[in-house]
Amino acid sequence: MHPFDTATLLEALPDGSFRGHTSPAYANMVGPFGGVIAACLLQAPMRHVARLGNPIALTVNFAAALADGEFNIAARPLRTNRSTQHWAMELTQGGEVAASAMAVFAVRRETWSAPEAAPPANLASPDMLTRAPPIGRPAWTHQYDMRFARGGLPDAFDEEQQLDSVSQVWVRDEPPRPLDFIALASLCDSFFPRIFVRRRKIAPIGTVSLTTYFHADAALLKEQDRRHVLGTARALNFRNGYFDQTAEVWSDEWQLLASSHQIVYYRD
Amino acid sequence: MHPFDTATLLEALPDGSFRGHTSPAYANMVGPFGGVIAACLLQAPMRHVARLGNPIALTVNFAAALADGEFNIAARPLRTNRSTQHWAMELTQGGEVAASAMAVFAVRRETWSAPEAAPPANLASPDMLTRAPPIGRPAWTHQYDMRFARGGLPDAFDEEQQLDSVSQVWVRDEPPRPLDFIALASLCDSFFPRIFVRRRKIAPIGTVSLTTYFHADAALLKEQDRRHVLGTARALNFRNGYFDQTAEVWSDEWQLLASSHQIVYYRD
Repeated sequence: MHPFDTATLLEALPDGSFRGHTSPAYANMVGPFGGVIAACLLQAPMRHVARLGNPIALTVNFAAALADGEFNIAARPLRTNRSTQHWAMELTQGGEVAASAMAVFAVRRETWSAPEAAPPANLASPDMLTRAPPIGRPAWTHQYDMRFARGGLPDAFDEEQQLDSVSQVWVRDEPPRPLDFIALASLCDSFFPRIFVRRRKIAPIGTVSLTTYFHADAALLKEQDRRHVLGTARALNFRNGYFDQTAEVWSDEWQLLASSHQIVYYRD
Repeated sequence: MHPFDTATLLEALPDGSFRGHTSPAYANMVGPFGGVIAACLLQAPMRHVARLGNPIALTVNFAAALADGEFNIAARPLRTNRSTQHWAMELTQGGEVAASAMAVFAVRRETWSAPEAAPPANLASPDMLTRAPPIGRPAWTHQYDMRFARGGLPDAFDEEQQLDSVSQVWVRDEPPRPLDFIALASLCDSFFPRIFVRRRKIAPIGTVSLTTYFHADAALLKEQDRRHVLGTARALNFRNGYFDQTAEVWSDEWQLLASSHQIVYYRD
């Protein structure tokens, strides 16, 4: 079983909620990697008997660091329309809310479609780049193969402030795993906190809210399979304890698979 | 009383929830303008006795169009930490969920701060531009003074597809009203659906999820007072029934007040 599937495995409980378990493979500095928490929260409606369609939007608010061990996820369908379905999820541990989430699912149909954002031009392909060494970094970073064309973590955190925090990175699960909605939800949180790139300084940070829009449907994800996707990430603003960052995830055939936004707490 | 304050007026009920009422001044094509619904959903924790700090993040999922008349909003504090507080809100009408929301509130303190996004250069000031006429448009558009430097609604929906959907618009409440968190939450939804700009074609649309990050604190909003703010908006991708758009709201002294993202359903 792939470590990501172990980490996002949910056991259905008699009351309709789900039991999950933190996974050492996806440990972060404090508690698990937020991407895997987001994936678990999306997994609950994905696994729910009442589900209609596939995810369009997912928002996860992180209220507290999880302790190692079991947690519970309750997923409530709030409203089901003809082609859309609205969900609320809550992750609790020891009876206290550690994360809350909402999702919109939909049955999509073919329409006029067009991109507007564009992927970076003249980008080196993944096989022309080397994998960023996860040595000395939290466990979860070992679960991704990341190849930076631009904006990797600096070798030294020398506090030399950069002009921007833009990253362009080829990324896939390590070991490789076919892309699906839960893997994409997790991957959207794999872009390092922009403040590390911009300030070249390690400071305590924590994502407080993460929103992902899924442009890909199941067929497009299936086509992408186990190959690297291209992620681009940048910050918009750092101000008095909170910064936001925005990311795009592109297929290697330049389809926008997801766009993702988050706001992150930081200390000086 | 300003029409916006009438539209976002909530009456505290004995069970701790709030009663609101749709307002004809902010009517949209079907149901009320989404911005005012978002503002009402934010108003509930703002007005709640348990509130800590001010909003950092707000996500609203729109599950159904509201009918004219009363609605109920329940706001639950999910978790209160030392400097942050997590909320879940639900708007119901006739016992059915019409919108769900989550918010993060926080007490902020001064830290190292820096912008990364930049406002457009060489922009005409609001007094050099004329107000876009709201004639023939839904009632809510009459409640905003919008002055487009770029990317206004076309005079004719001639279906001549544009290269992009970028707008740059000076906007304020009409009549003028001091800016605060709820007004900013509403204003973040005032950017017309990007598909109208891109395709120059009116098609049925509906925002399904809207997320706003508040970079401004109360002091910065107070400084901005009643003057126009600058909004920039663009789409990222249109695909099989859903597109996402992203917006920035700048003070007239070029502070980023908010960044906002939404995903919108569309029909051909």
